[in-house]
Amino acid sequence: MNFAIIKRTLGWILIFEALFFVLPIITGLIYQETQTWAFVWTVLICLGVGSLLVIGKVKNPALYAKEGFVIVAGSWILMSLFGALPFVFSGEIPSYVDALFETVSGFTTTGSSILSGEQIENMSKCLLMWRSFTHWIGGMGVLVFILAFLPLCGGGNNINLLRAESPGPSVSKLLPKMRSTAGVLYIIYAMLTVIQVIFLVFDMPLFDAITTSFATAGTGGFGIRADSCASYSVYSQIVVTVFMVLFSINFTSFFLVIRGRFKEAWTAEVRAFLTIVIVAITLISINLCLTPIMNYGVGTAIKDSAFSVASIISTTGFAVTDFNTWPAFSKTILVLLMFVGACAGSTGGGLKVSRWIIFCKGANAEMRHVLHPKQVKKITMDNRVVEHEVVRGVNGYLSAYILIFLASLLLISIEGHDLITNFTALAATINNVGPGLNLVGPSGNFSFFGDFSKIVFVFDMLVGRLEIFPMLVLFSPSTWKK
Amino acid sequence: MNFAIIKRTLGWILIFEALFFVLPIITGLIYQETQTWAFVWTVLICLGVGSLLVIGKVKNPALYAKEGFVIVAGSWILMSLFGALPFVFSGEIPSYVDALFETVSGFTTTGSSILSGEQIENMSKCLLMWRSFTHWIGGMGVLVFILAFLPLCGGGNNINLLRAESPGPSVSKLLPKMRSTAGVLYIIYAMLTVIQVIFLVFDMPLFDAITTSFATAGTGGFGIRADSCASYSVYSQIVVTVFMVLFSINFTSFFLVIRGRFKEAWTAEVRAFLTIVIVAITLISINLCLTPIMNYGVGTAIKDSAFSVASIISTTGFAVTDFNTWPAFSKTILVLLMFVGACAGSTGGGLKVSRWIIFCKGANAEMRHVLHPKQVKKITMDNRVVEHEVVRGVNGYLSAYILIFLASLLLISIEGHDLITNFTALAATINNVGPGLNLVGPSGNFSFFGDFSKIVFVFDMLVGRLEIFPMLVLFSPSTWKK
Repeated sequence: MNFAIIKRTLGWILIFEALFFVLPIITGLIYQETQTWAFVWTVLICLGVGSLLVIGKVKNPALYAKEGFVIVAGSWILMSLFGALPFVFSGEIPSYVDALFETVSGFTTTGSSILSGEQIENMSKCLLMWRSFTHWIGGMGVLVFILAFLPLCGGGNNINLLRAESPGPSVSKLLPKMRSTAGVLYIIYAMLTVIQVIFLVFDMPLFDAITTSFATAGTGGFGIRADSCASYSVYSQIVVTVFMVLFSINFTSFFLVIRGRFKEAWTAEVRAFLTIVIVAITLISINLCLTPIMNYGVGTAIKDSAFSVASIISTTGFAVTDFNTWPAFSKTILVLLMFVGACAGSTGGGLKVSRWIIFCKGANAEMRHVLHPKQVKKITMDNRVVEHEVVRGVNGYLSAYILIFLASLLLISIEGHDLITNFTALAATINNVGPGLNLVGPSGNFSFFGDFSKIVFVFDMLVGRLEIFPMLVLFSPSTWKK
Repeated sequence: MNFAIIKRTLGWILIFEALFFVLPIITGLIYQETQTWAFVWTVLICLGVGSLLVIGKVKNPALYAKEGFVIVAGSWILMSLFGALPFVFSGEIPSYVDALFETVSGFTTTGSSILSGEQIENMSKCLLMWRSFTHWIGGMGVLVFILAFLPLCGGGNNINLLRAESPGPSVSKLLPKMRSTAGVLYIIYAMLTVIQVIFLVFDMPLFDAITTSFATAGTGGFGIRADSCASYSVYSQIVVTVFMVLFSINFTSFFLVIRGRFKEAWTAEVRAFLTIVIVAITLISINLCLTPIMNYGVGTAIKDSAFSVASIISTTGFAVTDFNTWPAFSKTILVLLMFVGACAGSTGGGLKVSRWIIFCKGANAEMRHVLHPKQVKKITMDNRVVEHEVVRGVNGYLSAYILIFLASLLLISIEGHDLITNFTALAATINNVGPGLNLVGPSGNFSFFGDFSKIVFVFDMLVGRLEIFPMLVLFSPSTWKK
């Protein structure tokens, strides 16, 4: 284990994090809020600790897979630990565990909150900005960003970090150089965010437009109003719906569209994703219209179901209605969508559509194999053979995911809340969605859980965002053996 | 597709089924019940239809995998369709769909019932005997039994049927000839059942001892009292607990123990299974004792938790207490155990412990692979390499299982019952357990579901018992294409 390079990279991460606090500080200055001081203190602490870590010689700049994973998991944990400080210093979230939960929920683009609607509305603007900004930072992954512009480690080894941090089964190389690839993706990300702000600013204050766009872009879901997006106009709700869907699509596809390679952009994953979205909206709309007690008109039913489906499958977690009161069929669809998740290579979470495609093809291949034991037929996707390595990887991922899910479910059930609350709270955190059902539904929050359960959720949010293995490697005893 | 051999085998199955009705007829004669006539009519129908199917020449006796699957799925469906008739003819279950649900639940050793406690206590003895006997028939699989003694099809092709019908990832060949293997397993099965009857008959009427033993041996769970096993003595409850555990263990291990090969009998799966049982009992006992509202003494807590854990993990489904009222932690453990299931090669259902072992090892292997992409290390179990084929098969199985589970969940949620009821009802049927939570808890039953949902459950019970692929092959359009 190359401790020197890990220490140094983590130091740079902290110094960079100090830079991120500039935005909430500016916000605080504009609104003349005293809470701005909380950020100033945090900046000083980050710069101080970061500088201490950066000092020291690195003899060997080589970075192997193991170090890559440790750096990824370590930097996300470190950023969260320090990113939580302003909430505590300002006194707006007095409990450090609560502040950590909120920050991890932000960086991992989960959007689960321990704040009630009232607490959110009373929060200072600079903290609200920071809260939403964490989504935007976490959406694309900060490490890739930093490394794209700051070549800390030797040569092409950075691909190990990119692979560890980026979501989905495979990282395709868009451009020959990783730095260019990351750069292109960030530009697309930033451009889409700016476009959303422009669309929204006609209809809401700039502050609302920016924070809402940050939360949409990162598929996070922190709102700045007690009712999330319910009190925004229908126009704004439609804009948010469309952008939630856009940010769930593989960014590579946008790149290919820009280059005019439409056919390549229209991948099996994008097609499957959009099909699922449309089918889910249709089924829920019909279910809502046919349930007299819901009192839905066709238009509102389509709008609300489209918003909710986009919000859940993109793992954003905004709400325009309390879907906790919906009939069982619609709720079941939403719970299933939590696990489906977005496309690989987007900012969304969940298991990812491409993994589901590989599961389905794997099940189908197994049936074929059972019937014709001597035939060996490879799985294909987008006219390319899905290598055995990838299939095995996806299966190993699913096994690890299920095991962590079940272990966490057991741990949080110790507190004794009802099973739906526990199950959906876990589904909402490990898939980085945000709200669940019952006590953690759109009108509830996570504050009633004890600190132990909150730590479990923090772990699971990071597991979901970093796609399991970096966290497992960090906490595996074998990593730390000599 | 060799239709001639399929038709003929299904005909023999029906003729054999007529034989099975002898036991309830004898019971009816002893208790002088008029319902006995319902069985007599059914026997005549089975013999008639069976004879019609058997007539005709079979040119080609060869049986390939596809025919094997179709025969397995077809014969289970056919046996259920005809096995349901006595319930309808006697008027004790007037709805045919209900009768079919009850019969499939019996043959698949699920034990979910559409009967209320009161209805069960008022049922005639001959129908109660048939109901419990279906568990015993279904436990080991009737097809293997029939083929072991009646070589219908050519040569060694029967292994295709054995493979399609027997539970768990792999069928180990105990003895060189399949007929001997099946024979040995049936003898162990029958001996264990007789021993249980002997243990129980000291403490309850012979009728109760026989029906309870049938339901235990098949890990079915149909009781003949309104309160399942709650009103039996502590002695009987302990006997049932022990036998539920025994019938969850791979029968191959018993065979090896009889041959004195103790070390080979003590497989990784058996060790893991017993560890899970002991850990679960301990955790639930502690949880019950520490929950003041439950008012449990240590002794009762251990007895009730041991019974419930054994009942659920063996997928039997007997109850001595309404675990629906237990605290969330204990309930969560029980729900997880439903999915764990018993050992492969036992009469129990669920995903099977050996599959879970392969999942865990797969997740671990994937983590190793992520760290050291160039190392290729095979998974081992019981000091033998688990072939890539088996791992892929287990993963394909899991994918198919999850997809069927989710699709079924969506279908039954149309009715609008609460999510816990839907989820656990499905978990209880697809894993062949019996009771779930909430409305389908130990004190409830499945009668409130509509016919559509009941058909979904019937499908899922068969999917669970036949380990998915025979049912998928039967209903796959490609099977029926020329």
